[in-house]
Amino acid sequence: MKIALDAMGGDFSPREEVRGAIAACRELDIPVILVGDPARIEVELAAFPESRSLPLEVVAATEKIAMDEHPATAVKRKRQASIVVANELVRNGQAVGIVSAGNTGAAMAASLLRLGRITGIDRPAIAIPMPTANGVTVLLDAGANADCTAENLVQFALMGAVYAERVLNLANPRVALLNIGEEPTKGNALALAAYPLLASSGLNFVGNLEGLNIHRGAADVIVCDGFVGNVVLKLSEGLAGVLFAQIRETAGASVQGRLGGLLLRSSLRAMRGRLDYAEYGGAPLLGVDGVSIVAHGRSNGRAIRNAIKAASKAAQEGVVGIIRQAMANKGHDKEDRTSG
Amino acid sequence: MKIALDAMGGDFSPREEVRGAIAACRELDIPVILVGDPARIEVELAAFPESRSLPLEVVAATEKIAMDEHPATAVKRKRQASIVVANELVRNGQAVGIVSAGNTGAAMAASLLRLGRITGIDRPAIAIPMPTANGVTVLLDAGANADCTAENLVQFALMGAVYAERVLNLANPRVALLNIGEEPTKGNALALAAYPLLASSGLNFVGNLEGLNIHRGAADVIVCDGFVGNVVLKLSEGLAGVLFAQIRETAGASVQGRLGGLLLRSSLRAMRGRLDYAEYGGAPLLGVDGVSIVAHGRSNGRAIRNAIKAASKAAQEGVVGIIRQAMANKGHDKEDRTSG
Repeated sequence: MKIALDAMGGDFSPREEVRGAIAACRELDIPVILVGDPARIEVELAAFPESRSLPLEVVAATEKIAMDEHPATAVKRKRQASIVVANELVRNGQAVGIVSAGNTGAAMAASLLRLGRITGIDRPAIAIPMPTANGVTVLLDAGANADCTAENLVQFALMGAVYAERVLNLANPRVALLNIGEEPTKGNALALAAYPLLASSGLNFVGNLEGLNIHRGAADVIVCDGFVGNVVLKLSEGLAGVLFAQIRETAGASVQGRLGGLLLRSSLRAMRGRLDYAEYGGAPLLGVDGVSIVAHGRSNGRAIRNAIKAASKAAQEGVVGIIRQAMANKGHDKEDRTSG
Repeated sequence: MKIALDAMGGDFSPREEVRGAIAACRELDIPVILVGDPARIEVELAAFPESRSLPLEVVAATEKIAMDEHPATAVKRKRQASIVVANELVRNGQAVGIVSAGNTGAAMAASLLRLGRITGIDRPAIAIPMPTANGVTVLLDAGANADCTAENLVQFALMGAVYAERVLNLANPRVALLNIGEEPTKGNALALAAYPLLASSGLNFVGNLEGLNIHRGAADVIVCDGFVGNVVLKLSEGLAGVLFAQIRETAGASVQGRLGGLLLRSSLRAMRGRLDYAEYGGAPLLGVDGVSIVAHGRSNGRAIRNAIKAASKAAQEGVVGIIRQAMANKGHDKEDRTSG
């Protein structure tokens, strides 16, 4: 059950990727294939002599896709890009999942190109585990599909629920529709169309959820279109950053505040840790026909380790197979209804 | 230049409305007409004997629109509702603006019914002044229009810029389009259509702005549809609440933390004050043909005072007239282009 890691993807690659791979091997017994520039990977590995005895492999990939390249074009042109080669390893059965901290669009394009879509899923989605007051919530789509149909949202809900249950251990996950009011009659055209479909989907649909409650842990899976989801994701990150910066600034403005800040430092650190996306194992690309997880571009070794852990768990739990089966059953239901 | 205040709107009405009106009179020399149940208003006024000498009037309105009533229906049926009577005072020229902390939908419906729309504005919008790292940004639409066209967004941009410049003193306001990427080629169908229109609008358009930068003060006016805007507004409020609650909780968990929290208390309070929506004078309903401002339902006296101040300033600066003139000029431009 090896995981293919795009070692050249993140802002601090390949250093943090190598650290994450070593941690995943050593602490979690997950074998990792590091995909990228062998010379640069070896330099980083050399700093950890004990890594020689770990189940780590290196597979060469000579090209890299930059953050500003057009994903689909770059993936098609650069056959030797680390993200493309990593996906190839899963396609060939040499690995059971991919992790990359690179360009999210390129990761999606490479997984679509090499692994394909699960039959019945019209649009794959990026699912983001978001920290809440009391745990974690999966939000999707976080940016793969700027415009969505109501049917897309129902498929997102199904995939998100499987991931939440199997990988994040949220039993019978509560699925909510992100909306601007609690009543079924509230919302834009998309939300109004999606509500009844979700209500009759067989999922544990708990209704509409407003922005106020996203971070309060009122649902385990939150669905929305990729435009709204991306705004939610980035706004949350930005606002948390602004608030922490202001705490530092206000505390720094007086002797009393500085002392208070010192005394609170470990609590605030613990809290930032709990709110840190790095803890939740990256964002799965749900709907592609294989396990593919994107970590934050600024991932450190710990974030990479946790993304590898999530990829390994998703593979072990058969997340892709469960979604495939659910879609196949839905297809049969439809045929039954059509023929009956 | 009297302001008509819906004294029965907010969660703590009429107490906080009366306090806010007294503060606006005393501190800012703004005459206020309190609209609502005279007996209940008089009880509150009696607590401030010095209010007898202030330019405060009471106008009776015997009905009230509840938070869960259908706004348009309620406004048409309840002619004696405080929000309807307050709007009537502006229509009759007895007041130059309305402030209400009640049901936002009802406030919009009442202003549309009694004051009408500015010619050329297809859809009025709710504009929310949001605190940022270094000041304030106006976000619109914050929820009046769940589905929007690109032309709606351009009109929002124009109205938001006038309000930002005239009432919030942001000279030559930078207008941004909320989007999920910085490049003009990014976004959903709405954002893609709105970008070129904004770029050629004659406004100080600074391009796309991502969720990460909403609270960083990178723009003075941010436009988006009312679905996205409402999610942004409520998410910001919810996340800030969760973060402050977690600071309290983590700080409370140890003696050291409690001491740190005590020392930091005044700094944290000052910061909450800066981030408090109450400071920024409520949300103007832009596009209705008169000054109409909605304050938060949980408004305290200070928030009401600041909303009255904003309404007075908007009236003095002729915000509605400037928007009306700008739309008339646009209309002429269009005619010129059509006939030429």
